[in-house]
Amino acid sequence: MKKSIAIDMDNVIVDIETNWIGWYEKEFGVRIDKQDLLGIPEDDAFPDPVAARSLIYKTGFFRDAPMIQGAAEAVLKLQENYDIFIVSAAMEFPNSLIEKHDWLNEHFPFISWKNIVFCGDKRIIDTDYLIDDHLKNLDFCKGTPILFTASHNVNVTKHKRVNNWNEALALLEVG
Amino acid sequence: MKKSIAIDMDNVIVDIETNWIGWYEKEFGVRIDKQDLLGIPEDDAFPDPVAARSLIYKTGFFRDAPMIQGAAEAVLKLQENYDIFIVSAAMEFPNSLIEKHDWLNEHFPFISWKNIVFCGDKRIIDTDYLIDDHLKNLDFCKGTPILFTASHNVNVTKHKRVNNWNEALALLEVG
Repeated sequence: MKKSIAIDMDNVIVDIETNWIGWYEKEFGVRIDKQDLLGIPEDDAFPDPVAARSLIYKTGFFRDAPMIQGAAEAVLKLQENYDIFIVSAAMEFPNSLIEKHDWLNEHFPFISWKNIVFCGDKRIIDTDYLIDDHLKNLDFCKGTPILFTASHNVNVTKHKRVNNWNEALALLEVG
Repeated sequence: MKKSIAIDMDNVIVDIETNWIGWYEKEFGVRIDKQDLLGIPEDDAFPDPVAARSLIYKTGFFRDAPMIQGAAEAVLKLQENYDIFIVSAAMEFPNSLIEKHDWLNEHFPFISWKNIVFCGDKRIIDTDYLIDDHLKNLDFCKGTPILFTASHNVNVTKHKRVNNWNEALALLEVG
């Protein structure tokens, strides 16, 4: 039986950070440098955190986000050896539900609806691995946690870390 | 630590059967008797199965469905002793995502977004119990399966069965 991997969306396959910076500049005319986000919790990363958070609720915010480099090719490779589930805590932002669904259909058409999970707390998800950027998910997962690097987590020292999808493939021994 | 229960939506807390019969009559002018659905797979339950299935994709089909009798009061009681997760295979019908979310917000406002899961295959859900009307979910769940009676499953002889929410409360020793 194949082992299973749960893969988070934002900051793992979706480049929500680049997206957020772009929307912030477009809406408020302030360009944030990615370097300034390093080690900062996402909610505190912008000069006006309330304004930054308001963007999350805007139509198109999740639908138009770019993909993390190499994500689709890597997940397609992983799928040869693993059961892949895309597991996103989308329930916090109900407006994101259909947008995230449509984004997956466009960028990851090889993922069946049967393998997509939109949830809140990921503690009830039981897979052999979880690739995620947040300790709130990794610390409580039932399988092996894999920390995917995002600006906000660069100072985290827990869990096995991968900096990109090439490193993830190497770790999971898929080349 | 509280034990956890995953609770399905359609035919368990949502009276999708009554809803379907109502929509079928409204759209096609044919009134189906509930008795005629007993023991019949859902997809074959209406005179014109293709027409019946088309209703699932219509706006409002999931949002306006009535609740299964006693479901909200029962789940509220269960919540005192169990961690409750609402787990629906909503991903098969993307139009249902926001409608099911809004339905839950209206009828089950005491369920946090953290405890809602919209998925496909429920095999990766790990809770102590699963209350569901479908063998495709119950047969593969990691916890104890509880079959909730629906017309289509009346002839099923596997798994512990509850016919209504009072029986579910009794089985789970919450009165």
